[in-house]
Amino acid sequence: MTTSLTLENPVFREFIGYATILILKTLFLGLLTSFYRVTKKIFATEEDVSYFQVKKKGIVLDDPDVERVRRAHQNDLENIPLFVLLGIIYCTTSPALSVALLHFRIFTVARLAHTVVYLFKVPQPARAGAFFTGMCINLSLVFQILFKIAF
Amino acid sequence: MTTSLTLENPVFREFIGYATILILKTLFLGLLTSFYRVTKKIFATEEDVSYFQVKKKGIVLDDPDVERVRRAHQNDLENIPLFVLLGIIYCTTSPALSVALLHFRIFTVARLAHTVVYLFKVPQPARAGAFFTGMCINLSLVFQILFKIAF
Amino acid sequence: MTTSLTLENPVFREFIGYATILILKTLFLGLLTSFYRVTKKIFATEEDVSYFQVKKKGIVLDDPDVERVRRAHQNDLENIPLFVLLGIIYCTTSPALSVALLHFRIFTVARLAHTVVYLFKVPQPARAGAFFTGMCINLSLVFQILFKIAF
Repeated sequence: MTTSLTLENPVFREFIGYATILILKTLFLGLLTSFYRVTKKIFATEEDVSYFQVKKKGIVLDDPDVERVRRAHQNDLENIPLFVLLGIIYCTTSPALSVALLHFRIFTVARLAHTVVYLFKVPQPARAGAFFTGMCINLSLVFQILFKIAF
Repeated sequence: MTTSLTLENPVFREFIGYATILILKTLFLGLLTSFYRVTKKIFATEEDVSYFQVKKKGIVLDDPDVERVRRAHQNDLENIPLFVLLGIIYCTTSPALSVALLHFRIFTVARLAHTVVYLFKVPQPARAGAFFTGMCINLSLVFQILFKIAF
Repeated sequence: MTTSLTLENPVFREFIGYATILILKTLFLGLLTSFYRVTKKIFATEEDVSYFQVKKKGIVLDDPDVERVRRAHQNDLENIPLFVLLGIIYCTTSPALSVALLHFRIFTVARLAHTVVYLFKVPQPARAGAFFTGMCINLSLVFQILFKIAF
């Protein structure tokens, strides 16, 4: 049964590689936020202020570097889990492998580009391009799934 | 095998329609945030301020319209992905189709209502009603799953 | 077929128990935020300010108790859905049950500890310990999945 969510389904087998890499990238941005907080001593919580003995500085919520990583991370959280959920559903609708691969690859490249562009402050419209490319792939998955179950 | 995550499982087949529509709605709120930012020229990032040449205005983090869409979007992100994850798990526990459909439909209507109520500023307790209805469905799925695997 | 996402797969059967408990905990933090907002009358939205007749106080975005629950909730949203997605994928790669259980249990305990530590203001490095333990489990799942499909 090639529409099942098993490694025997070639679409699913390809999918989980891309999905896992995207999740890894999202986790990395969470770690990077922690790294910036500790190295720059920018904390949002009392216990951290006490532990790192930066009482004078206190809680800081508007450091531009920390906020930039947080926004990049947040944008991933708004897009990547939804892609993975749509992808799992999509794998059960027996799409053509070539079409599926095209979607998975474009989304993965777009979101990796989004992070690079965000962190290295590449001028617009680079970030908008990466964001909308990922969004279009998600919307394409939505419409393919809805079309499949409607007919 | 009607408990597998395939289109042959009628519960799963119904589920993916509702799940995909809810994901589409969440993606739409992400797009709406971008739309408001660009049309109202309210940006959270330096590159956007430069690109749209609104240096005088600079970074704005408290525009009420943008913040309203962002809060509606955030509330979706706190509830809809968890519903989809619970729903996928729930579909493997062979629930009665009628019970499953009732859950999927109430959740979908409640979350669509939540967005409409939020964006059109319908007075409370409309939003609280929509939020708690969705929450109850998620909790009901949680307890049905736990009951199923415990016995 | 023990690699399918069905209750016949013992790894998946164990997984959904832990996943559901973690999702329940995340939902609980959403409810706790609402509870604090209503009992302390701390609102982020105009309609709530009107409904609870706290016009003088108005919108409050920096109450320390509400912000603490919100940050704990946000940290769950950054980690738990990704764990559940990785876990679903992981269950299709036929891991040893003992290895899988070790991952599921450590992650669940770490995230429950994270919430307790955050809400009860336990001094650092308790929260950092809980966070990094959960992160390590997620990274371990990532690398096991990638290793499995690569070879």
